[in-house]
Amino acid sequence: MKNRVTELLGIRYPIIQGGMQWVGKAELVAAVSNAGGLGVITALTQPTPKDLEREIQRTRELTDKPFGVNLTLLPTLKPPPYAEYVQVIIEQGVKIIETAGNSPKAFIPQLKAHGLVIVHKCTTVRHALSAERDGVDIVSIDGFECAGHPGEDDVPGLVLIPLATQALKIPVIASGGIADGRGMAAAMALGAEGVNMGTRFFATQEAPVHDNIKQALVSATERDTRLMLRSFRNTTRVLRNAVSEAVVARERHPEGCEFEDVRPWVVGTRGRDAMLSGDVDGGVIAAGQVVGLIHDIPSCAELIERMVADCRAHLAQAQRWTAE
Amino acid sequence: MKNRVTELLGIRYPIIQGGMQWVGKAELVAAVSNAGGLGVITALTQPTPKDLEREIQRTRELTDKPFGVNLTLLPTLKPPPYAEYVQVIIEQGVKIIETAGNSPKAFIPQLKAHGLVIVHKCTTVRHALSAERDGVDIVSIDGFECAGHPGEDDVPGLVLIPLATQALKIPVIASGGIADGRGMAAAMALGAEGVNMGTRFFATQEAPVHDNIKQALVSATERDTRLMLRSFRNTTRVLRNAVSEAVVARERHPEGCEFEDVRPWVVGTRGRDAMLSGDVDGGVIAAGQVVGLIHDIPSCAELIERMVADCRAHLAQAQRWTAE
Repeated sequence: MKNRVTELLGIRYPIIQGGMQWVGKAELVAAVSNAGGLGVITALTQPTPKDLEREIQRTRELTDKPFGVNLTLLPTLKPPPYAEYVQVIIEQGVKIIETAGNSPKAFIPQLKAHGLVIVHKCTTVRHALSAERDGVDIVSIDGFECAGHPGEDDVPGLVLIPLATQALKIPVIASGGIADGRGMAAAMALGAEGVNMGTRFFATQEAPVHDNIKQALVSATERDTRLMLRSFRNTTRVLRNAVSEAVVARERHPEGCEFEDVRPWVVGTRGRDAMLSGDVDGGVIAAGQVVGLIHDIPSCAELIERMVADCRAHLAQAQRWTAE
Repeated sequence: MKNRVTELLGIRYPIIQGGMQWVGKAELVAAVSNAGGLGVITALTQPTPKDLEREIQRTRELTDKPFGVNLTLLPTLKPPPYAEYVQVIIEQGVKIIETAGNSPKAFIPQLKAHGLVIVHKCTTVRHALSAERDGVDIVSIDGFECAGHPGEDDVPGLVLIPLATQALKIPVIASGGIADGRGMAAAMALGAEGVNMGTRFFATQEAPVHDNIKQALVSATERDTRLMLRSFRNTTRVLRNAVSEAVVARERHPEGCEFEDVRPWVVGTRGRDAMLSGDVDGGVIAAGQVVGLIHDIPSCAELIERMVADCRAHLAQAQRWTAE
């Protein structure tokens, strides 16, 4: 396939594996890249910049194809050493960085000087325009359906993707709400030149999480996600389970809820431990509404080949339906 | 264009004008049908069955093309005489009925006996499956983005449309989130055989509302709608204005809010009066998130011809991007 996204990223298919905390590790990343998509390491899943260095090297042992590193910039009291993570990404010769959470403006000159392609993920058109002005190469626009942080505007992809592709000169990747070839076809009909998928890659053979968790995604319907932390304007879409139900219930308490009340559930490594041990109710598990469209646990190669074939078939069908 | 929806409805393009309270009147309906789409009269905008009879006759004077009548079945203490409205629809020889709000099951045998095509609009896959079992011919599936009543599940079209097209044997019309040829192309790539649009047809030359209201839709962005009445499980997406802000503010009152508190704003003819007088803050005005994609007030014929051309162009572009 050929468009600005495949050209800029040097990949066969414009299918990008979204940065996922605890999941975006070498095995999954290499599997996606080997299958012709773009695998993306999650930098902050690695506790230190040195660990990220090792993870990049480990990925390179598993694939000679391009892959990226996701760096999520969050305003916290004790921020991780972002500059050191960036330094490792550059020194290790990674050619693609995905930023999210906040503007990567401070790092853009340094990243550009070393020839990196910068994909910035955001949830609104105004942030996308700002990132374009700052000099990022591609915007990944994340709709209300998505896993993790959909923002506070609640605009889904069917409206947000065409708004973004119309407003921006740089290419757009559609993120959120896509799990198969039909979604890919729709995103590209809306003007996106690629798709980003998290939840769908979570439920693949190569995702480094316990099989119980993958089965929970297969069992879940489109109604089995929850928006939590809305009352703190840090809305997070996660799988409906005992933990997310407890957090949402606390947030609804008539006397209000302080962040300290829910912190034990949502901060730290409970989510990671749940995903590794297979305890579906053990912690917060990010999942998008596309869980309703996920019915199996294929290898990344099977998934991508099927998507590509289905995408083409659905575009061809839509063309037949709309011919003269 | 040719697929099951154009064949069943006898129309040139599978573009359906959604039933809209106070807006779905003869002038608009005839304009849409004359342009090759399907115009739809809103039955309950007519105060009595006799008035509906006159409106159907008035429409027929303006077009010789097929058109439909929308009948929204709502469980209320003092329901309108639904059976009498149905009788008028049948007696006047209307060939297409769009039902919504509740199952049309009780009327299906009678409608079928007179050869009507039944399009049922709903917001969930489980209701769609139930309507299919009851014998409707087409399901119009309405996503979270839509104007009016999106239901309580908050599943947008990008996820809901493929779920519906996969689950149902009968054809699906995509509703909500579509305002142009790109949205039409995306809906059809997701397997829908037609699109339903309300807000977009609201902002056309022929819509029988004051120009101030149409201009307000053109000015609004994707962030300018509000979900109100959520606390009564009767969620309604409307334009953000003084009235909807007041209703939402009351609903958020910590001591709770009774329906009687907001009834004066949301029941009755305030919305109609606002739309006719051009007082944008005078009443509740239904509007979907696609207001952000609406930038002009074309005639229905201009709109539909542009959509058809854009739909084809975007499908062709997506095919180029995804070719071998």
